[in-house]
Amino acid sequence: MSEGAQDNQEHSHRVQGVRGLNRRQFLAGGVSLLAMSASSTLFDAQAEEPTDATDPMRVPGALPRSYGERSPLEKQVRLVASTSSTTPLQDLQGIITPSALHFERHHNGVPAIDPTRHRLLIHGSVNHPLFFTVEELKRLPSASRIAFVECSGNSRDGWGDARDATAQSLHGLTSTSEWTGVKLSTLLDAVHVQREATWMLAEGNDAAALARSVPLTDEVLNEAMVCYGQNGEALRPEQGYPLRLFLPGFEGNVNVKWLRRLKLGSAPFMTRWETAKYTDLLPDGRAYQFSLVMEAKSVITKPSGQQQLRQGFHEIQGLAWSGRGRITTVDVSVDAGRTWQPAQLQEPVLPKCHTRFRFPWKWDGQETIIQSRCLDETGYQQPIRDALIKVRGTHSSYHYNGIQSWKIGRDGLVRNVYA
Amino acid sequence: MSEGAQDNQEHSHRVQGVRGLNRRQFLAGGVSLLAMSASSTLFDAQAEEPTDATDPMRVPGALPRSYGERSPLEKQVRLVASTSSTTPLQDLQGIITPSALHFERHHNGVPAIDPTRHRLLIHGSVNHPLFFTVEELKRLPSASRIAFVECSGNSRDGWGDARDATAQSLHGLTSTSEWTGVKLSTLLDAVHVQREATWMLAEGNDAAALARSVPLTDEVLNEAMVCYGQNGEALRPEQGYPLRLFLPGFEGNVNVKWLRRLKLGSAPFMTRWETAKYTDLLPDGRAYQFSLVMEAKSVITKPSGQQQLRQGFHEIQGLAWSGRGRITTVDVSVDAGRTWQPAQLQEPVLPKCHTRFRFPWKWDGQETIIQSRCLDETGYQQPIRDALIKVRGTHSSYHYNGIQSWKIGRDGLVRNVYA
Repeated sequence: MSEGAQDNQEHSHRVQGVRGLNRRQFLAGGVSLLAMSASSTLFDAQAEEPTDATDPMRVPGALPRSYGERSPLEKQVRLVASTSSTTPLQDLQGIITPSALHFERHHNGVPAIDPTRHRLLIHGSVNHPLFFTVEELKRLPSASRIAFVECSGNSRDGWGDARDATAQSLHGLTSTSEWTGVKLSTLLDAVHVQREATWMLAEGNDAAALARSVPLTDEVLNEAMVCYGQNGEALRPEQGYPLRLFLPGFEGNVNVKWLRRLKLGSAPFMTRWETAKYTDLLPDGRAYQFSLVMEAKSVITKPSGQQQLRQGFHEIQGLAWSGRGRITTVDVSVDAGRTWQPAQLQEPVLPKCHTRFRFPWKWDGQETIIQSRCLDETGYQQPIRDALIKVRGTHSSYHYNGIQSWKIGRDGLVRNVYA
Repeated sequence: MSEGAQDNQEHSHRVQGVRGLNRRQFLAGGVSLLAMSASSTLFDAQAEEPTDATDPMRVPGALPRSYGERSPLEKQVRLVASTSSTTPLQDLQGIITPSALHFERHHNGVPAIDPTRHRLLIHGSVNHPLFFTVEELKRLPSASRIAFVECSGNSRDGWGDARDATAQSLHGLTSTSEWTGVKLSTLLDAVHVQREATWMLAEGNDAAALARSVPLTDEVLNEAMVCYGQNGEALRPEQGYPLRLFLPGFEGNVNVKWLRRLKLGSAPFMTRWETAKYTDLLPDGRAYQFSLVMEAKSVITKPSGQQQLRQGFHEIQGLAWSGRGRITTVDVSVDAGRTWQPAQLQEPVLPKCHTRFRFPWKWDGQETIIQSRCLDETGYQQPIRDALIKVRGTHSSYHYNGIQSWKIGRDGLVRNVYA
């Protein structure tokens, strides 16, 4: 009988023996690496070992599936509101957002598009207007990039009162995927763009006919893609199946989903989506228009709003990102901003991509406020809320990136506050 | 009326006008960047534009879903055989394998495990044996890493005759995910490993009680993890829900799924999974044992086995990976190995991770053989089949990493051959 088989029979028994004796020893042992609490509240799961007939070692398992969905015991979902759905930031791990949980924003529902009938038209100030089927696009030279997309309206609560809500509800309109498609420059070369063309209209095939103007800057020409892939397979319907425009670092809205048309021109096209909406109203009544880049932001997602904390060790985790490039540092404060210490960044740190930060912390049970602030490679630092509002006022609905403060009460409850 | 709305009404009309005129212009225009064929066979989709009442711009779209699965029109699946299921390599994009399409290998089915009742026991040559609930593990310091897992039996057909099959069927027991969990070193520190402990038994909670011995090398101590996360959410059931061992670069089998127990000891535990199986029989009757590392391999996935090619431009794509570290170069031959040219590697190139390579090519319609070969950062180059067999013979079932040759017939059919 192999060692494995021998031990196997003794497993339940050993576990029973181990539990009482050694958990305490472990906790009292002062494991410095873990900076763990010696309190017995750290590990409090006391469920019994399974010994019944459903023991998975006593019955053959199920057959694998041809498309292996998540366990039915997993319940994380997007919060679906009338016009958007938020990613459960507090439940995410690593930097990839599961495609099924990627945030979405729609303006007249999610269209059902048959990719075999879909066409992308490229016309306007070009010498050779063309349309492409999805299959044709897939046969062109391709590229893939792991990067975030964030709705410009993400974190908009920050402009108003501090709403008692979760990280998902407050900041969940941002997600990261590996996007695959054709570089925009490949397509523009194919249509022979005329010299006068400095802007491009991108239009969706949805019932809102959402359309945005994109300036043809060097950055756009170098980085923009027409995507058909997300995390290794086709785009999900909510993310633009079968085609979307992808403009790394730009507000989500211009990453036009269900993309059907690109029109080149010599000026912005002034659609309702960049005049009546998606502009940033300033205190003096003027407004920023085409404020396309998402500035650096960070959010602690664990612990975060409406979670219940216990005294002892916690790994503070969160996400940081910048539409300008790479995140260089994330600092964490656990004393309401009096002192800051650098968090560890998960490698590789990619440009215009969610970057997970981690920071070990032991909560002593006292009331406090935890915060994170990030710096990107351009030297831009995420502002405190007061500084942001001093410039922008409180009439905007977009581009809020102030430092998030979570207050932890003596009862362990985590709440959204302005500090 | 905005520019977008105006153009919108004219879309179908314009497309009709554009099609006849400009597709030909584009194709005849010699777009050098694309190195495209001037043949009209490049783009042959001739479906009509949708004009019926199901036009997605004329009806409001569907409501988004709280968990947004793929479009029902997408049909890629794993090929499910009696003991394993292969990833559709030829359909993948980028480097992330969709979790639902990650390959799986099981030895007595996929167990149904309730994570709230599951325990991980760590015992043997330790001073403080301990068990952990999944929740307890999630509260410890965490780490995430994008890396491949490959079954040691992947590509095993290479040891025998050249079977006419797809890339998926021949090489689909390899996949890449972002894995999240606790570093093994964190857990071993917690149990106070005794000095004599140089090996570790890892045992699964499946009905096979699969168990493997792992040497506690520096590499293992630095890199191994006990994982609960895959691509941002919980492990899928087929990949070990709720816990698996993750040993970057090691054969899949030792990355024990449904992990329930780690036992430390001073010698390998000689389970049936490392004596009767998962050893490499050599020509002289001896066998490699504990041949744990997956050596460098590459496979062209597009075009690949049983696909039908048309004359003209093709972007050759494939995956390369090495259990020893980063891929440094992938060369492609389109003339049966007479000449080789470097392919472009998708950035970032990560250690012990699938690396996508791309190579533009124009097929002239003549019979030929295409191949890829990779080099890793240790200087190891993927061998030709003859060189591999000279050392290893043909009695092994494991660790085949010879260069894959795809023959393209004059009829455009792609077939697996030995060249």
